[in-house]
Amino acid sequence: MPRLKLVVAYDGTAFAGWQSQTHRNTVQDTLERALHDICGTRARVHGAGRTDAGVHALAQCAHVDLPSRRLSSASWTSALNATLPATIRVLRSRFVSPEFHARFSATGKTYRYRIWLGPILPPLELNRVWHIPKPIDFERLIAAGAVFVGKHDFAAFAANRGKKGESTVRTIWELKVRKKKSEATIEISGDGFLYKMVRLMVGAMVQAARGKLPAEEIAEQLRIGRAKRARYVAPASGLYLIKVWY
Amino acid sequence: MPRLKLVVAYDGTAFAGWQSQTHRNTVQDTLERALHDICGTRARVHGAGRTDAGVHALAQCAHVDLPSRRLSSASWTSALNATLPATIRVLRSRFVSPEFHARFSATGKTYRYRIWLGPILPPLELNRVWHIPKPIDFERLIAAGAVFVGKHDFAAFAANRGKKGESTVRTIWELKVRKKKSEATIEISGDGFLYKMVRLMVGAMVQAARGKLPAEEIAEQLRIGRAKRARYVAPASGLYLIKVWY
Repeated sequence: MPRLKLVVAYDGTAFAGWQSQTHRNTVQDTLERALHDICGTRARVHGAGRTDAGVHALAQCAHVDLPSRRLSSASWTSALNATLPATIRVLRSRFVSPEFHARFSATGKTYRYRIWLGPILPPLELNRVWHIPKPIDFERLIAAGAVFVGKHDFAAFAANRGKKGESTVRTIWELKVRKKKSEATIEISGDGFLYKMVRLMVGAMVQAARGKLPAEEIAEQLRIGRAKRARYVAPASGLYLIKVWY
Repeated sequence: MPRLKLVVAYDGTAFAGWQSQTHRNTVQDTLERALHDICGTRARVHGAGRTDAGVHALAQCAHVDLPSRRLSSASWTSALNATLPATIRVLRSRFVSPEFHARFSATGKTYRYRIWLGPILPPLELNRVWHIPKPIDFERLIAAGAVFVGKHDFAAFAANRGKKGESTVRTIWELKVRKKKSEATIEISGDGFLYKMVRLMVGAMVQAARGKLPAEEIAEQLRIGRAKRARYVAPASGLYLIKVWY
Protein backbone atom coordinates (compact mmCIF):
# COMPACT_ATOMS: atom_id res chain seq x y z
CA MET A 1 0.00 0.00 0.00
CA PRO A 2 1.53 3.31 -1.01
CA ARG A 3 2.05 5.71 1.89
CA LEU A 4 1.23 9.37 1.26
CA LYS A 5 2.60 12.17 3.41
CA LEU A 6 0.31 15.21 3.70
CA VAL A 7 1.06 18.75 4.84
CA VAL A 8 -2.21 20.16 6.09
CA ALA A 9 -3.34 23.65 7.15
CA TYR A 10 -6.55 24.36 9.02
CA ASP A 11 -8.51 27.05 10.77
CA GLY A 12 -9.11 25.31 14.09
CA THR A 13 -12.05 27.52 15.08
CA ALA A 14 -14.70 25.30 13.56
CA PHE A 15 -13.20 21.96 14.64
CA ALA A 16 -13.22 19.87 17.80
CA GLY A 17 -9.43 19.48 17.42
CA TRP A 18 -7.37 17.12 15.30
CA GLN A 19 -8.00 13.76 16.92
CA SER A 20 -10.85 11.51 15.75
CA GLN A 21 -13.84 11.38 18.12
CA THR A 22 -17.19 9.69 17.89
CA HIS A 23 -19.76 12.05 16.41
CA ARG A 24 -17.38 14.99 16.58
CA ASN A 25 -16.28 17.37 13.94
CA THR A 26 -12.51 16.85 13.98
CA VAL A 27 -9.86 17.50 11.34
CA GLN A 28 -8.78 13.85 11.25
CA ASP A 29 -12.40 12.66 10.79
CA THR A 30 -12.95 15.22 8.04
CA LEU A 31 -9.79 14.10 6.21
CA GLU A 32 -10.79 10.43 6.53
CA ARG A 33 -14.29 11.19 5.19
CA ALA A 34 -12.75 13.02 2.21
CA LEU A 35 -10.45 10.04 1.48
CA HIS A 36 -13.44 7.71 1.72
CA ASP A 37 -15.41 9.90 -0.68
CA ILE A 38 -12.54 9.78 -3.18
CA CYS A 39 -11.49 6.14 -3.08
CA GLY A 40 -14.51 4.41 -1.54
CA THR A 41 -12.54 2.64 1.18
CA ARG A 42 -11.73 3.59 4.75
CA ALA A 43 -8.18 4.74 5.41
CA ARG A 44 -6.77 5.90 8.70
CA VAL A 45 -4.95 9.25 8.78
CA HIS A 46 -2.05 9.45 11.24
CA GLY A 47 -1.16 12.97 12.40
CA ALA A 48 2.20 14.16 13.69
CA GLY A 49 0.41 15.25 16.84
CA ARG A 50 -2.97 16.18 18.21
CA THR A 51 -4.10 19.76 18.29
CA ASP A 52 -6.91 20.80 20.65
CA ALA A 53 -10.23 22.34 19.67
CA GLY A 54 -9.61 25.88 18.41
CA VAL A 55 -5.88 25.38 17.75
CA HIS A 56 -4.80 26.24 14.20
CA ALA A 57 -2.24 24.65 11.92
CA LEU A 58 -0.20 26.24 9.18
CA ALA A 59 1.59 22.96 8.48
CA GLN A 60 0.42 19.91 10.38
CA CYS A 61 1.84 16.68 8.93
CA ALA A 62 0.08 13.36 8.49
CA HIS A 63 0.40 10.12 6.58
CA VAL A 64 -2.09 7.69 5.15
CA ASP A 65 -1.82 4.29 3.48
CA LEU A 66 -3.77 4.39 0.23
CA PRO A 67 -5.52 1.40 -1.33
CA SER A 68 -3.80 1.97 -4.69
CA ARG A 69 -1.29 4.13 -6.52
CA ARG A 70 -3.94 5.09 -9.06
CA LEU A 71 -3.38 8.85 -8.59
CA SER A 72 -0.21 10.95 -8.51
CA SER A 73 0.52 12.83 -5.28
CA ALA A 74 -0.40 16.12 -7.01
CA SER A 75 -3.73 14.58 -8.01
CA TRP A 76 -4.31 13.49 -4.41
CA THR A 77 -3.69 17.08 -3.27
CA SER A 78 -6.23 18.39 -5.79
CA ALA A 79 -8.79 15.66 -5.16
CA LEU A 80 -8.63 16.15 -1.40
CA ASN A 81 -8.92 19.94 -1.68
CA ALA A 82 -11.90 19.54 -4.01
CA THR A 83 -13.61 17.38 -1.37
CA LEU A 84 -12.54 19.01 1.91
CA PRO A 85 -14.21 22.12 3.37
CA ALA A 86 -12.23 25.32 2.68
CA THR A 87 -11.29 25.48 6.37
CA ILE A 88 -8.88 22.56 5.75
CA ARG A 89 -6.35 22.58 2.91
CA VAL A 90 -3.78 20.01 1.86
CA LEU A 91 -0.83 22.27 1.00
CA ARG A 92 1.20 19.48 -0.59
CA SER A 93 1.59 15.72 -0.53
CA ARG A 94 4.18 13.17 -1.61
CA PHE A 95 4.67 9.43 -1.53
CA VAL A 96 7.05 8.30 1.20
CA SER A 97 8.65 5.02 2.20
CA PRO A 98 6.62 2.68 4.42
CA GLU A 99 9.15 3.37 7.19
CA PHE A 100 7.98 6.97 7.41
CA HIS A 101 5.51 7.64 10.22
CA ALA A 102 4.04 11.13 10.69
CA ARG A 103 4.24 10.86 14.47
CA PHE A 104 7.13 8.52 15.21
CA SER A 105 9.47 9.87 12.52
CA ALA A 106 9.01 13.47 13.68
CA THR A 107 12.15 14.84 15.32
CA GLY A 108 10.51 18.00 16.57
CA LYS A 109 7.86 20.65 16.17
CA THR A 110 7.55 24.42 16.07
CA TYR A 111 4.53 26.20 17.51
CA ARG A 112 3.62 29.86 17.30
CA TYR A 113 1.53 31.57 19.95
CA ARG A 114 -0.04 34.95 19.17
CA ILE A 115 -1.07 37.43 21.88
CA TRP A 116 -2.98 40.64 21.22
CA LEU A 117 -2.05 43.33 23.72
CA GLY A 118 -4.32 46.33 24.05
CA PRO A 119 -7.78 47.22 25.27
CA ILE A 120 -9.65 46.46 22.03
CA LEU A 121 -9.40 43.29 19.96
CA PRO A 122 -9.67 43.98 16.19
CA PRO A 123 -12.59 41.93 14.83
CA LEU A 124 -10.40 40.22 12.25
CA GLU A 125 -8.21 38.80 15.07
CA LEU A 126 -11.15 37.11 16.79
CA ASN A 127 -10.44 33.39 17.48
CA ARG A 128 -6.86 33.88 16.24
CA VAL A 129 -5.06 35.35 19.24
CA TRP A 130 -5.13 35.48 23.01
CA HIS A 131 -6.51 38.91 23.81
CA ILE A 132 -4.85 40.42 26.88
CA PRO A 133 -6.37 43.89 27.38
CA LYS A 134 -4.24 45.04 30.30
CA PRO A 135 -0.52 45.87 29.87
CA ILE A 136 2.01 43.17 30.73
CA ASP A 137 5.72 43.45 31.42
CA PHE A 138 7.37 42.41 28.19
CA GLU A 139 10.85 41.99 29.70
CA ARG A 140 9.43 39.57 32.27
CA LEU A 141 7.69 37.66 29.48
CA ILE A 142 11.05 37.19 27.75
CA ALA A 143 12.83 36.29 31.00
CA ALA A 144 10.21 33.67 31.88
CA GLY A 145 10.42 32.17 28.38
CA ALA A 146 14.20 31.81 28.66
CA VAL A 147 13.77 29.49 31.67
CA PHE A 148 12.19 26.83 29.45
CA VAL A 149 15.03 26.57 26.94
CA GLY A 150 17.08 23.37 27.21
CA LYS A 151 16.41 19.83 28.40
CA HIS A 152 13.98 19.59 31.32
CA ASP A 153 11.39 17.35 32.89
CA PHE A 154 8.16 19.03 31.78
CA ALA A 155 5.88 16.86 33.96
CA ALA A 156 4.55 20.03 35.63
CA PHE A 157 3.62 21.40 32.21
CA ALA A 158 1.43 18.52 31.04
CA ALA A 159 -2.33 18.46 31.48
CA ASN A 160 -2.56 14.69 31.92
CA ARG A 161 -0.36 12.05 33.49
CA GLY A 162 0.50 10.28 30.27
CA LYS A 163 1.18 6.55 30.17
CA LYS A 164 3.05 5.10 33.11
CA GLY A 165 6.76 4.95 32.56
CA GLU A 166 6.68 7.35 29.62
CA SER A 167 9.30 10.04 29.85
CA THR A 168 8.22 13.62 30.41
CA VAL A 169 11.68 14.93 29.58
CA ARG A 170 11.73 17.20 26.53
CA THR A 171 14.21 19.59 24.99
CA ILE A 172 13.21 23.09 23.95
CA TRP A 173 15.68 24.10 21.26
CA GLU A 174 14.56 27.67 20.93
CA LEU A 175 11.98 30.07 22.33
CA LYS A 176 11.67 33.39 20.50
CA VAL A 177 9.56 36.30 21.74
CA ARG A 178 8.83 39.21 19.41
CA LYS A 179 6.65 42.29 19.69
CA LYS A 180 5.29 44.33 16.81
CA LYS A 181 2.86 47.09 17.70
CA SER A 182 0.02 45.44 19.66
CA GLU A 183 1.04 41.88 18.87
CA ALA A 184 3.39 39.62 20.79
CA THR A 185 4.46 36.37 19.20
CA ILE A 186 6.10 33.45 20.94
CA GLU A 187 7.70 30.75 18.80
CA ILE A 188 8.70 27.54 20.51
CA SER A 189 10.69 24.75 18.89
CA GLY A 190 11.51 21.48 20.56
CA ASP A 191 11.93 17.74 20.15
CA GLY A 192 8.45 17.02 21.49
CA PHE A 193 5.57 18.45 23.46
CA LEU A 194 3.37 16.91 26.15
CA TYR A 195 -0.40 17.36 26.23
CA LYS A 196 -1.23 21.12 26.48
CA MET A 197 2.47 21.82 27.16
CA VAL A 198 2.75 24.89 24.92
CA ARG A 199 -0.39 26.45 26.37
CA LEU A 200 0.80 25.79 29.93
CA MET A 201 4.22 27.28 29.11
CA VAL A 202 2.65 30.41 27.56
CA GLY A 203 0.20 30.64 30.47
CA ALA A 204 3.12 30.61 32.93
CA MET A 205 5.02 33.21 30.87
CA VAL A 206 2.02 35.55 30.88
CA GLN A 207 1.47 35.08 34.62
CA ALA A 208 5.15 36.00 35.07
CA ALA A 209 4.67 39.06 32.82
CA ARG A 210 1.72 40.07 35.00
CA GLY A 211 3.97 39.91 38.05
CA LYS A 212 2.01 36.98 39.47
CA LEU A 213 4.61 34.25 39.03
CA PRO A 214 8.35 34.76 39.57
CA ALA A 215 10.56 33.20 36.90
CA GLU A 216 12.28 31.31 39.74
CA GLU A 217 9.04 29.49 40.42
CA ILE A 218 8.90 28.31 36.81
CA ALA A 219 12.46 27.03 37.23
CA GLU A 220 11.32 25.21 40.37
CA GLN A 221 8.38 23.66 38.52
CA LEU A 222 10.87 22.28 36.00
CA ARG A 223 12.99 20.88 38.85
CA ILE A 224 10.21 19.42 41.02
CA GLY A 225 7.94 18.25 38.19
CA ARG A 226 4.56 16.68 38.70
CA ALA A 227 4.31 17.73 42.36
CA LYS A 228 4.20 21.42 41.40
CA ARG A 229 1.95 21.64 38.38
CA ALA A 230 1.42 24.71 36.23
CA ARG A 231 -2.20 25.74 36.55
CA TYR A 232 -2.64 28.53 34.08
CA VAL A 233 -3.52 27.42 30.54
CA ALA A 234 -3.35 29.93 27.67
CA PRO A 235 -6.42 29.73 25.40
CA ALA A 236 -6.39 27.50 22.32
CA SER A 237 -7.25 30.33 19.91
CA GLY A 238 -3.74 31.84 19.95
CA LEU A 239 -1.90 28.59 19.15
CA TYR A 240 -0.61 27.55 15.71
CA LEU A 241 1.30 24.40 14.79
CA ILE A 242 3.64 25.86 12.17
CA LYS A 243 6.18 23.12 11.44
CA VAL A 244 6.87 19.46 12.02
CA TRP A 245 10.55 18.54 11.73
CA TYR A 246 11.69 15.21 10.21
CA MET B 1 -27.52 67.08 21.33
CA PRO B 2 -23.85 66.11 21.60
CA ARG B 3 -22.42 64.60 18.43
CA LEU B 4 -20.08 61.62 18.84
CA LYS B 5 -17.63 60.56 16.14
CA LEU B 6 -16.89 56.84 16.07
CA VAL B 7 -14.05 54.93 14.44
CA VAL B 8 -15.36 51.44 13.81
CA ALA B 9 -13.72 48.18 12.67
CA TYR B 10 -15.64 45.12 11.52
CA ASP B 11 -15.29 41.71 9.98
CA GLY B 12 -17.72 42.09 7.08
CA THR B 13 -18.15 38.33 6.57
CA ALA B 14 -21.12 38.00 8.87
CA PHE B 15 -22.90 41.22 7.83
CA ALA B 16 -25.18 42.26 4.99
CA GLY B 17 -23.01 45.36 4.54
CA TRP B 18 -22.96 48.67 6.38
CA GLN B 19 -26.22 50.27 5.31
CA SER B 20 -29.42 49.76 7.32
CA GLN B 21 -31.93 47.40 5.72
CA THR B 22 -35.28 46.07 6.88
CA HIS B 23 -34.80 42.73 8.63
CA ARG B 24 -31.17 42.54 7.64
CA ASN B 25 -28.10 42.04 9.68
CA THR B 26 -26.11 45.18 8.85
CA VAL B 27 -23.34 46.97 10.73
CA GLN B 28 -25.37 50.21 10.97
CA ASP B 29 -28.41 48.36 12.36
CA THR B 30 -26.23 46.53 14.88
CA LEU B 31 -24.66 49.81 16.06
CA GLU B 32 -28.08 51.47 16.34
CA ARG B 33 -29.42 48.52 18.36
CA ALA B 34 -26.41 48.75 20.70
CA LEU B 35 -27.00 52.50 21.20
CA HIS B 36 -30.66 51.81 21.88
CA ASP B 37 -29.75 49.13 24.42
CA ILE B 38 -27.45 51.58 26.20
CA CYS B 39 -29.51 54.78 26.25
CA GLY B 40 -33.04 53.54 25.62
CA THR B 41 -33.73 55.90 22.73
CA ARG B 42 -33.35 55.51 19.00
CA ALA B 43 -30.39 57.30 17.44
CA ARG B 44 -29.40 57.24 13.80
CA VAL B 45 -25.79 56.35 12.97
CA HIS B 46 -24.36 58.12 9.90
CA GLY B 47 -21.46 56.32 8.22
CA ALA B 48 -18.75 57.91 6.08
CA GLY B 49 -19.77 55.52 3.33
CA ARG B 50 -21.54 52.27 2.67
CA THR B 51 -19.63 49.05 2.46
CA ASP B 52 -21.16 46.03 0.71
CA ALA B 53 -21.89 42.65 2.25
CA GLY B 54 -18.59 40.88 2.95
CA VAL B 55 -16.45 44.05 2.81
CA HIS B 56 -14.33 44.64 5.90
CA ALA B 57 -13.37 47.84 7.70
CA LEU B 58 -10.26 48.57 9.73
CA ALA B 59 -11.41 52.15 10.34
CA GLN B 60 -14.85 53.12 9.09
CA CYS B 61 -16.02 56.45 10.49
CA ALA B 62 -19.49 57.39 11.68
CA HIS B 63 -21.26 59.98 13.79
CA VAL B 64 -24.32 59.88 15.99
CA ASP B 65 -26.27 62.50 17.91
CA LEU B 66 -26.69 61.32 21.47
CA PRO B 67 -29.64 62.15 23.72
CA SER B 68 -27.38 63.40 26.51
CA ARG B 69 -23.77 64.01 27.49
CA ARG B 70 -24.15 61.69 30.45
CA LEU B 71 -21.12 59.57 29.48
CA SER B 72 -17.59 60.52 28.45
CA SER B 73 -16.48 59.48 24.97
CA ALA B 74 -14.22 56.81 26.51
CA SER B 75 -17.24 55.44 28.39
CA TRP B 76 -19.22 55.37 25.14
CA THR B 77 -16.45 53.34 23.53
CA SER B 78 -16.49 50.85 26.42
CA ALA B 79 -20.28 50.70 26.67
CA LEU B 80 -20.66 50.10 22.92
CA ASN B 81 -17.98 47.40 22.88
CA ALA B 82 -19.62 45.69 25.85
CA THR B 83 -22.89 45.59 23.91
CA LEU B 84 -21.78 44.94 20.32
CA PRO B 85 -20.86 41.51 18.96
CA ALA B 86 -17.08 40.93 18.85
CA THR B 87 -17.20 41.14 15.03
CA ILE B 88 -17.71 44.92 15.40
CA ARG B 89 -15.46 47.08 17.57
CA VAL B 90 -15.48 50.79 18.28
CA LEU B 91 -11.75 51.58 18.20
CA ARG B 92 -12.19 55.10 19.58
CA SER B 93 -14.73 57.87 19.82
CA ARG B 94 -14.73 61.59 20.55
CA PHE B 95 -17.22 64.43 20.75
CA VAL B 96 -17.18 66.66 17.69
CA SER B 97 -18.82 69.93 16.71
CA PRO B 98 -22.35 69.75 15.26
CA GLU B 99 -20.87 70.89 11.91
CA PHE B 100 -18.98 67.60 11.59
CA HIS B 101 -20.70 65.04 9.37
CA ALA B 102 -19.14 61.57 8.90
CA ARG B 103 -20.09 61.52 5.22
CA PHE B 104 -20.15 65.15 4.08
CA SER B 105 -17.07 66.26 6.01
CA ALA B 106 -14.97 63.41 4.64
CA THR B 107 -12.33 64.65 2.18
CA GLY B 108 -11.28 61.20 1.01
CA LYS B 109 -10.91 57.53 1.73
CA THR B 110 -8.30 54.82 1.50
CA TYR B 111 -9.21 51.25 0.60
CA ARG B 112 -7.04 48.18 0.63
CA TYR B 113 -7.68 45.22 -1.64
CA ARG B 114 -5.98 41.88 -0.89
CA ILE B 115 -5.41 39.21 -3.53
CA TRP B 116 -4.10 35.73 -2.80
CA LEU B 117 -2.09 34.38 -5.71
CA GLY B 118 -1.37 30.67 -5.83
CA PRO B 119 -3.16 27.38 -6.30
CA ILE B 120 -4.18 26.83 -2.66
CA LEU B 121 -5.90 29.33 -0.38
CA PRO B 122 -4.69 29.06 3.25
CA PRO B 123 -7.75 28.39 5.44
CA LEU B 124 -7.05 31.44 7.61
CA GLU B 125 -7.36 33.71 4.53
CA LEU B 126 -10.86 32.46 3.72
CA ASN B 127 -13.32 35.39 3.27
CA ARG B 128 -10.42 37.85 3.60
CA VAL B 129 -8.89 37.90 0.14
CA TRP B 130 -9.69 37.36 -3.51
CA HIS B 131 -8.19 33.99 -4.33
CA ILE B 132 -6.73 33.89 -7.85
CA PRO B 133 -5.25 30.42 -8.33
CA LYS B 134 -3.71 30.94 -11.78
CA PRO B 135 -0.65 33.17 -12.28
CA ILE B 136 -1.26 36.76 -13.41
CA ASP B 137 1.14 39.26 -14.95
CA PHE B 138 2.16 41.50 -12.08
CA GLU B 139 3.69 44.20 -14.31
CA ARG B 140 0.42 44.50 -16.21
CA LEU B 141 -1.47 44.76 -12.91
CA ILE B 142 0.71 47.74 -11.95
CA ALA B 143 0.42 49.34 -15.40
CA ALA B 144 -3.38 49.04 -15.38
CA GLY B 145 -3.54 50.54 -11.89
CA ALA B 146 -1.49 53.56 -12.97
CA VAL B 147 -4.17 54.48 -15.55
CA PHE B 148 -6.64 55.30 -12.76
CA VAL B 149 -4.46 57.84 -10.94
CA GLY B 150 -5.60 61.44 -11.34
CA LYS B 151 -8.91 63.19 -11.96
CA HIS B 152 -11.29 61.23 -14.21
CA ASP B 153 -14.97 60.65 -14.91
CA PHE B 154 -15.48 57.25 -13.28
CA ALA B 155 -19.05 56.77 -14.64
CA ALA B 156 -17.92 53.52 -16.31
CA PHE B 157 -16.70 52.26 -12.92
CA ALA B 158 -19.96 52.67 -10.99
CA ALA B 159 -22.47 49.87 -10.54
CA ASN B 160 -25.52 52.14 -10.53
CA ARG B 161 -26.45 55.35 -12.29
CA GLY B 162 -26.46 57.54 -9.18
CA LYS B 163 -28.77 60.51 -8.81
CA LYS B 164 -29.36 62.57 -11.93
CA GLY B 165 -27.00 65.49 -12.23
CA GLU B 166 -24.58 64.12 -9.61
CA SER B 167 -21.00 64.26 -10.71
CA THR B 168 -19.15 61.02 -11.40
CA VAL B 169 -15.79 62.80 -11.50
CA ARG B 170 -13.40 61.63 -8.81
CA THR B 171 -9.70 62.05 -8.13
CA ILE B 172 -7.50 59.09 -7.27
CA TRP B 173 -4.58 60.51 -5.32
CA GLU B 174 -2.57 57.37 -5.14
CA LEU B 175 -2.73 53.71 -6.15
CA LYS B 176 -0.06 51.46 -4.68
CA VAL B 177 0.49 47.85 -5.68
CA ARG B 178 2.70 45.62 -3.59
CA LYS B 179 3.55 41.95 -3.66
CA LYS B 180 4.85 39.88 -0.80
CA LYS B 181 5.18 36.14 -1.39
CA SER B 182 1.72 34.92 -2.47
CA GLU B 183 -0.10 38.12 -1.57
CA ALA B 184 -0.73 41.17 -3.73
CA THR B 185 -2.10 44.28 -2.08
CA ILE B 186 -3.62 47.26 -3.85
CA GLU B 187 -4.12 50.46 -1.85
CA ILE B 188 -6.27 53.15 -3.40
CA SER B 189 -6.71 56.64 -1.97
CA GLY B 190 -8.99 59.26 -3.45
CA ASP B 191 -11.40 62.07 -2.74
CA GLY B 192 -14.45 59.86 -3.17
CA PHE B 193 -15.65 56.56 -4.58
CA LEU B 194 -18.80 55.69 -6.53
CA TYR B 195 -20.86 52.57 -5.78
CA LYS B 196 -18.66 49.44 -6.25
CA MET B 197 -15.96 51.65 -7.82
CA VAL B 198 -12.99 50.05 -6.03
CA ARG B 199 -14.16 46.54 -6.89
CA LEU B 200 -14.71 47.50 -10.54
CA MET B 201 -11.24 49.11 -10.68
CA VAL B 202 -9.57 46.04 -9.15
CA GLY B 203 -11.63 43.78 -11.45
CA ALA B 204 -10.36 45.71 -14.48
CA MET B 205 -6.76 45.59 -13.19
CA VAL B 206 -6.92 41.82 -12.75
CA GLN B 207 -8.47 41.35 -16.20
CA ALA B 208 -5.57 43.42 -17.58
CA ALA B 209 -3.10 41.27 -15.61
CA ARG B 210 -4.71 38.17 -17.15
CA GLY B 211 -4.12 39.65 -20.60
CA LYS B 212 -7.86 39.98 -21.23
CA LEU B 213 -8.12 43.78 -21.11
CA PRO B 214 -5.50 46.15 -22.52
CA ALA B 215 -4.64 49.11 -20.27
CA GLU B 216 -5.62 51.35 -23.22
CA GLU B 217 -9.17 50.07 -22.94
CA ILE B 218 -9.30 51.13 -19.29
CA ALA B 219 -8.11 54.58 -20.37
CA GLU B 220 -10.89 54.63 -22.97
CA GLN B 221 -13.47 53.66 -20.34
CA LEU B 222 -12.35 56.66 -18.30
CA ARG B 223 -12.69 58.90 -21.41
CA ILE B 224 -16.04 57.60 -22.71
CA GLY B 225 -17.69 56.96 -19.35
CA ARG B 226 -21.09 55.45 -18.91
CA ALA B 227 -21.30 54.21 -22.52
CA LYS B 228 -18.42 51.77 -21.94
CA ARG B 229 -18.99 50.26 -18.54
CA ALA B 230 -16.56 48.05 -16.68
CA ARG B 231 -18.15 44.64 -16.25
CA TYR B 232 -15.80 42.72 -14.06
CA VAL B 233 -16.35 43.15 -10.31
CA ALA B 234 -13.73 41.90 -7.83
CA PRO B 235 -15.30 39.97 -4.93
CA ALA B 236 -16.23 41.80 -1.72
CA SER B 237 -14.13 39.52 0.52
CA GLY B 238 -10.81 41.15 -0.48
CA LEU B 239 -11.88 44.73 0.22
CA TYR B 240 -11.05 46.73 3.36
CA LEU B 241 -11.97 50.33 4.16
CA ILE B 242 -8.82 51.36 6.00
CA LYS B 243 -9.07 55.13 6.44
CA VAL B 244 -11.48 58.04 6.10
CA TRP B 245 -9.77 61.40 5.63
CA TYR B 246 -11.18 64.60 7.18
